[in-house]
Amino acid sequence: MVLFGSPGTVSGLFLRIGQCGFAAASVVIMASASGFSTATAFCYLIASMGLQVLWSFTLVCLDIHALRLKKDMQNHVLVSLFVVGDWVTATLSLSAACASAGVAILFDRDTVICRRMEKMSCSMFQISIAMAFISWFLLAVSSHVTFFLLVAFAASQQ
Amino acid sequence: MVLFGSPGTVSGLFLRIGQCGFAAASVVIMASASGFSTATAFCYLIASMGLQVLWSFTLVCLDIHALRLKKDMQNHVLVSLFVVGDWVTATLSLSAACASAGVAILFDRDTVICRRMEKMSCSMFQISIAMAFISWFLLAVSSHVTFFLLVAFAASQQ
Repeated sequence: MVLFGSPGTVSGLFLRIGQCGFAAASVVIMASASGFSTATAFCYLIASMGLQVLWSFTLVCLDIHALRLKKDMQNHVLVSLFVVGDWVTATLSLSAACASAGVAILFDRDTVICRRMEKMSCSMFQISIAMAFISWFLLAVSSHVTFFLLVAFAASQQ
Repeated sequence: MVLFGSPGTVSGLFLRIGQCGFAAASVVIMASASGFSTATAFCYLIASMGLQVLWSFTLVCLDIHALRLKKDMQNHVLVSLFVVGDWVTATLSLSAACASAGVAILFDRDTVICRRMEKMSCSMFQISIAMAFISWFLLAVSSHVTFFLLVAFAASQQ
């Protein structure tokens, strides 16, 4: 079955490149923002987005390999592996992005921390969190497609 | 197909009762904690858990109805509806729980807000967030089961 975004297709490759790029941008922007280490949530965002860069980059390489050699990546074992990896990284990314967004809103709206402390780069926190949400959304698309493929395999073998 | 936790079964009913109960406990504990309105994330947790109580309670009623009259709830339209509702509420619940956890960790570990401000009931925030995570976990189980059922339907009709 060839779905939009399934592993080993051009659309799947672009989804993975998008995930990897936005996650890397999120890490770089957050790490270069001054004062990020005051909140555990921001450090967790860097760790989680770093993991997502590694995972998506591995799959970018696998997709390029499959496309160049015209291999079929849709066997049961590989798809199961993708499903587990995708769900774990997607849950971690969403939780990190939401935790950081909670803290950023607290800094910016609920308290006067952003206005008082000049050395906190609050706008960079927000850009980094927006990148993390975009990256999570692309990963969510991929993970639903792989889960769909896995269940379709399981149903076809019954 | 009868899976653990699928709609219209006893295990599914218990999952829904668990979701509803833990979400209601989370709302009650958070709303009775003093100082919760200082953070937008805590207000969002109350709204999101309130939505989950409504959704899970509706499904508890539907499951009891199906079990009493021995009706089969597993038709394509109903399962599609459950999948969409489950995924929306599960994503909202996870994001609310994570945003609140980020703020609670900021209050408790990263800053001295919890120790300085006696009138903030930080331990009640934490209990409420733990309840929200348990409720989200039970909802995640239900939503994966319904998604599995939907894909199995789609695959069997091809």
